Amino acid sequence: MRMYDIIAKKRDGGELTDEEIQFFIDGYVRGEIPDYQASALLMAVYYKGMNARETASLTMSMARSGEMVDLSSIDGVKVDKHSTGGVGDKTTLIISPIVASLGVRVAKMSGRGLGHTGGTVDKMESIPGMQTALDRERFFDIVRKVGVSVIGQSGNLVPADKKLYALRDVTATIESIPLIASSIMSKKIAAGSDCILLDVKTGSGAFMKTTEDSIRLAQAMVSIGEHVGRKTIALITDMDRPLGNAIGNSLEICEVCETLKGRGPQDLTQICLELAANMLYLAGKGDLAECRSMARTQLESGAAFEKLKEMVAAQGGDVSVLMDNSKFEQAKIQQEILASSDGYIYAMNTEQCGIASVELGAGREKKEDPIDFSAGIMLRKKVGDAVKKGEPIATFYTSTEARCRDAEALFQRAVTISPEPPKAIPIVHARVTRDGVEQYSV
Amino acid sequence: MRMYDIIAKKRDGGELTDEEIQFFIDGYVRGEIPDYQASALLMAVYYKGMNARETASLTMSMARSGEMVDLSSIDGVKVDKHSTGGVGDKTTLIISPIVASLGVRVAKMSGRGLGHTGGTVDKMESIPGMQTALDRERFFDIVRKVGVSVIGQSGNLVPADKKLYALRDVTATIESIPLIASSIMSKKIAAGSDCILLDVKTGSGAFMKTTEDSIRLAQAMVSIGEHVGRKTIALITDMDRPLGNAIGNSLEICEVCETLKGRGPQDLTQICLELAANMLYLAGKGDLAECRSMARTQLESGAAFEKLKEMVAAQGGDVSVLMDNSKFEQAKIQQEILASSDGYIYAMNTEQCGIASVELGAGREKKEDPIDFSAGIMLRKKVGDAVKKGEPIATFYTSTEARCRDAEALFQRAVTISPEPPKAIPIVHARVTRDGVEQYSV
Repeated sequence: MRMYDIIAKKRDGGELTDEEIQFFIDGYVRGEIPDYQASALLMAVYYKGMNARETASLTMSMARSGEMVDLSSIDGVKVDKHSTGGVGDKTTLIISPIVASLGVRVAKMSGRGLGHTGGTVDKMESIPGMQTALDRERFFDIVRKVGVSVIGQSGNLVPADKKLYALRDVTATIESIPLIASSIMSKKIAAGSDCILLDVKTGSGAFMKTTEDSIRLAQAMVSIGEHVGRKTIALITDMDRPLGNAIGNSLEICEVCETLKGRGPQDLTQICLELAANMLYLAGKGDLAECRSMARTQLESGAAFEKLKEMVAAQGGDVSVLMDNSKFEQAKIQQEILASSDGYIYAMNTEQCGIASVELGAGREKKEDPIDFSAGIMLRKKVGDAVKKGEPIATFYTSTEARCRDAEALFQRAVTISPEPPKAIPIVHARVTRDGVEQYSV
Repeated sequence: MRMYDIIAKKRDGGELTDEEIQFFIDGYVRGEIPDYQASALLMAVYYKGMNARETASLTMSMARSGEMVDLSSIDGVKVDKHSTGGVGDKTTLIISPIVASLGVRVAKMSGRGLGHTGGTVDKMESIPGMQTALDRERFFDIVRKVGVSVIGQSGNLVPADKKLYALRDVTATIESIPLIASSIMSKKIAAGSDCILLDVKTGSGAFMKTTEDSIRLAQAMVSIGEHVGRKTIALITDMDRPLGNAIGNSLEICEVCETLKGRGPQDLTQICLELAANMLYLAGKGDLAECRSMARTQLESGAAFEKLKEMVAAQGGDVSVLMDNSKFEQAKIQQEILASSDGYIYAMNTEQCGIASVELGAGREKKEDPIDFSAGIMLRKKVGDAVKKGEPIATFYTSTEARCRDAEALFQRAVTISPEPPKAIPIVHARVTRDGVEQYSV
């Protein structure tokens, strides 16, 4: 078998065999196939695509390139969840405790933030003492005892994806559905859960800007999951506006606590109930209506909040900051940002809001950048709200005046105030299962 | 400027600016742009193409990556010629003396053979003493005094093409019209002549298998030449059957001599007269009919043969082998190959004939392979000829019985004998100038 022939076959629109895909991934990870041949193949895949079988085959070859986590020593159904990333997306830390409090196991590996999107691991680390790099046995033990643990992704999970993603990032081959789908799903499959819930974001703050593209990506990922024996469902959810009011690490943890106590922003609460309900549904806890109702009960009873505290304590975190959010370290500068005119908040470019929060210190542009856990944005007004000129629309939290100024310029450009209110848009646009796409309006 | 953005622009079908193309070529030749980004761009060009301006711009950026030969110190019009390569193609050594004997200057750099096609430099080196690596001043001097010199391509001509071609060769990005056209034309432009005649082969022994593809390539090359101020014409000529009767280095030199004495095979003589006439036309020697007639006169008068002898002598070659071809070193084994049945030679797969001659020792599979100058094939029958079973259709020249056996198996498979004669096909299919494509039947 020759890599040249594999490139030429895909270039001409051919269907690669499982053996050809395995040959490529094995050879590439071992360094026997050079980057320049891999990038030529990736560009051919960009144009010619991959069918469902090829995409599933690529995913499995990638997943097997490193450690495959074996969760079989943990009793019960294990459900994983993945979000394609957004601004203010703290849902993992709300829904994992909800479903764990109902006996569904969550052994989740999460990522760090990069660019305009935040990462769950960073948010957790804003809790003093919180450990996110646990060895395998300790991680499993916490899942067994508490029902849920969230840690950072292990170094040896899917090395093929690390290497391929880095190459795609510099060769303009990121935006390919089969390549995105296999990258995400290879990590979920290697992470070992029985069921996978995918939260595919759509809109100005998402990687996929249109509902159609988001549905196509969701279909590709659901198809991979079902091809390889993992029950998989995807919700297409809105990221045309930031999720909830908090953007920034400890600010988001505070909002997680409020939401788990039933006092969270409406959009965030709703999406979390839907995501949790679908995780419960995947775990076989009932039909979707029953699962929704169960999830709501766990919020209202406080059982989900108790579960979060248990998990934080088990991972060495200081639970007192969860009970009294004022104990979080506070940002030096807290500044109100005022509406520039009368009207309605018509739009908020979510990616730009994310970039503004990075400017404030809440995220990183490069992997090595440090994070200011206390920095970020609290939205005082959301899309659709009426505002008066000079009225606060947000509060910025940061360490220097200069950061504040630069971020405000970005933020003001991200906010459109208009005489007319915008049309309401749903929080969940669609639900993709192996049976097809359901329109789904919440 | 970032290479990433250039890849993404071409990936999306955008038109690259001259500056972007220059940035790519400069950075790639200097090693600042890595192979993996170059191959991603090449694959995007494979799919999205390049327009005439982009292709001309790429060609000039490549040409300028190394030495640009300056022929201005040589008086008169300098005309270059390029063939896309074939089997038995010895036209350079016939037409260059023809046009030089009429005062048109030919300062030509030629290539070596690789794979199934031979190379002019190898053929010349079968003449004892012949030097093909002359320094620039000696080369120019011979062109000034004799009117023609043919040497090997200099090491520093178009380094960008060497590097890009090697990358295309392993990333399945050879077969792209703008990339092929720019590769050929960059070398012709760097070589410095005022006018360029292109011999674009078509058929089973050619890189381009169909007339349509050959015309597209010819149009791209003519467009480049005219874009950058070089008068350029292309003839689309047949390579569906070997050209002339001789395949192999000294065998072809013998055929060159016969043809220059007016006793060559009809197909070879005709194509040479057409190529020479078009070179004379490019040099402004008259209209095409006049140029054809002039070229024929130089063959019949012996003036063209005299010019070849002058050039060979000037480059240190032993002219006596040209006057008495029996002085060439003779192959140890000379074996007649017999027709396997009665009928007409219906087809000869030219690429396979070329591979058979490589098997006999006349060519090389890898750059480092040595060549047996005396080895090769003399065709006794051509496509269209009637044959009887057991009648000689070719003579093989080689050094071992084993080579002879292996080559015969290849050759017999290449020859189709049929009860019906094939349709006659023209030797020249079309002529491409800046004014368009002329059907052209010779």
